[in-house]
Amino acid sequence: MSNIPKIVILGAGYGGILTAQRLQKELNYNEADVTLVNRHDYHYITTHLHMPAAGTDTIDHARVPISKLIDEFKIDLVKSAVKDIRPHEKKVILEDGTLSYDILVVSLGGEPETFGIPGMKEHAMTIRSINSVRLIREHIEYQFACYKNDNIASRLRFVVGGAGFSGVEFVSELADRLPRLCKEFDVEPEKVELYNVEAAPTALPGFDKELVEYAMDVLKNKGIILRIGVPIKECFAGGVIIGDGERIEASTVVWTGGIRGNKLIENAGFEVTRGRVKVDEYLRAPGYDHIYIIGDSSLVLNKDGRPYPPTAQIAMQQGVNCAKNIALSIRGKHLIKFTFSHKGTVASLGKGEAIAIVNGKKWKGWKAAQLKKAVDIRYLYVIGGIPLVLQKGRFF
Amino acid sequence: MSNIPKIVILGAGYGGILTAQRLQKELNYNEADVTLVNRHDYHYITTHLHMPAAGTDTIDHARVPISKLIDEFKIDLVKSAVKDIRPHEKKVILEDGTLSYDILVVSLGGEPETFGIPGMKEHAMTIRSINSVRLIREHIEYQFACYKNDNIASRLRFVVGGAGFSGVEFVSELADRLPRLCKEFDVEPEKVELYNVEAAPTALPGFDKELVEYAMDVLKNKGIILRIGVPIKECFAGGVIIGDGERIEASTVVWTGGIRGNKLIENAGFEVTRGRVKVDEYLRAPGYDHIYIIGDSSLVLNKDGRPYPPTAQIAMQQGVNCAKNIALSIRGKHLIKFTFSHKGTVASLGKGEAIAIVNGKKWKGWKAAQLKKAVDIRYLYVIGGIPLVLQKGRFF
Repeated sequence: MSNIPKIVILGAGYGGILTAQRLQKELNYNEADVTLVNRHDYHYITTHLHMPAAGTDTIDHARVPISKLIDEFKIDLVKSAVKDIRPHEKKVILEDGTLSYDILVVSLGGEPETFGIPGMKEHAMTIRSINSVRLIREHIEYQFACYKNDNIASRLRFVVGGAGFSGVEFVSELADRLPRLCKEFDVEPEKVELYNVEAAPTALPGFDKELVEYAMDVLKNKGIILRIGVPIKECFAGGVIIGDGERIEASTVVWTGGIRGNKLIENAGFEVTRGRVKVDEYLRAPGYDHIYIIGDSSLVLNKDGRPYPPTAQIAMQQGVNCAKNIALSIRGKHLIKFTFSHKGTVASLGKGEAIAIVNGKKWKGWKAAQLKKAVDIRYLYVIGGIPLVLQKGRFF
Repeated sequence: MSNIPKIVILGAGYGGILTAQRLQKELNYNEADVTLVNRHDYHYITTHLHMPAAGTDTIDHARVPISKLIDEFKIDLVKSAVKDIRPHEKKVILEDGTLSYDILVVSLGGEPETFGIPGMKEHAMTIRSINSVRLIREHIEYQFACYKNDNIASRLRFVVGGAGFSGVEFVSELADRLPRLCKEFDVEPEKVELYNVEAAPTALPGFDKELVEYAMDVLKNKGIILRIGVPIKECFAGGVIIGDGERIEASTVVWTGGIRGNKLIENAGFEVTRGRVKVDEYLRAPGYDHIYIIGDSSLVLNKDGRPYPPTAQIAMQQGVNCAKNIALSIRGKHLIKFTFSHKGTVASLGKGEAIAIVNGKKWKGWKAAQLKKAVDIRYLYVIGGIPLVLQKGRFF
């Protein structure tokens, strides 16, 4: 048995994959054992999932085999689901086995937050994994096929709950897809209704007012029925009840309204707010010098004391910082503080349309859509270099 | 108002489209008014439906716009569903209107015959129209998507009821498709089970024993679980009960076990056997000189007094004969008797495999599969000439 520290990374999302890659680069031979645990043998590009969910792009443009991203001579890959984290025992229980660690990185991603809306958890679909978006795509196509056999009008009614970032990106994409499905299944397009319902007084919180208005115009022009400032009161098997009791009979409800921390973290006994752990300045769980929590289950406050929203961008930067700190701690050096550097935000609005703020500068329309592509290409480059950019090229 | 006879053709399947086309050719200008009524604006190639049902070919290779097949200057096309036939009033009630006729051709196709098996009508899908096969295809894909989210084993179990012509062609095709679906949805192929259940002591009745054995070997090699000589006792929402009570939990059941005449014909007061009318030697309904019944709802006996099975081949020949007799009757001439000339039978067994008997000669394997293609091409040529053969070329 070697005496070198054993590092275990849970989850190969944005945070986990960046941590693993940077550790692989940073650490010398025999400086540590690194194990990356993931439920699937692929990494997926969450910011791209709204497209395969709507059926406007294939699944394979949204995922990459992990074996292409890490060097399996340097990092052990364990394909298994995490069942339990035991901080006091320094152990992680997997679906098929147990792992001990000296240093743990928890980068398990988040879970949909339904804010206690009755029935939402049970009846709505969510965009959160390759499997969940395949379900949404197939569910939607199935409704068209069923409609042509049973003529039930609610089959052609679609509700997207939430007009934040994910909600708007998905509903835009779905609006692009529905006319094609109408053609494929011989359905008159005027029979289809697509709703986007948001409880907050405005869509796309965090975006500049002018850009939000632009986005809303794009959505309206696509025929989307907008209900902004209208809460969903209840979700049932056949639709939703919104606002003052308006009933929308819809056999497809997709909830994009929020993200909370992973249940496993709360179960492990960490103190959480909406399932997320307020990590220290080095991204460690309070009270645990050897446990880093990054990504959607971590809570980092900005200068004004408000939490940064969970994004791929912050998770990636956390991964880089986390890897550095692990290397520093192994070498007995001072850790470096995490600071989030906001590079900008781009929200796609379907084919050829987007809005963006980059370095304070606003973009919209076709140029913003090009920016979105550039961001996606940059990410592929960061995790997989030019080969991955070329291989997933059709992505764009 | 002209005083020329009004001919109404109900249904643009094999029989109806051939009748319309031959009348168009046969009749002189102003000799008769011809109206073709069909629920859809397309004709579909029923013998090809097993492929889009399994998802191994697109819908558009299985249908042709009717406007490409008939000359709308010579024949009126009414897109509507038939609700009621009133022989005494010489009227047909459509979903949106009423049509009077002097001569009626009933070529409405058949309906699935479930032989009173409890639950079969309610819970099984059938291969009988473009809409029904789109449902089957989407239903199957949806099961894979659901399985990856709920892990219910019966999602991956598929039962095809009936191992006659349609059953064997469909189950073969589905066996070709399932491994591809496993790959697409990341499902281990060994988790999938495909059953073909047939109550009769042998599959493919009417085929030579040697060819049936060959076909069964092909099916077995595809991994299909054969239950020949085993009746389905009951179909329920989640599967079937077969033989002595064996319960197969399967979320997909497709029934191909039989065809009976169209309900509309029985409703119209014609005397029927399994919904089919034993027509006279000129294809007319007994007692009605001006009503022809052809295709799946007609009953024609062979020399031994046994009914010919309902096929595309016999429906086409009936259409040709029917058109001739209508022209002869308008001209006050003697009608000609219908005799079925059996050209042979080809059953496809998936990609590159088939069995065939043509002019008493047996074929199997790749050569028989080529024959199947030749039959399909010939049909396209008959109804649409070389342009249609070229246009639907990918068909093959």
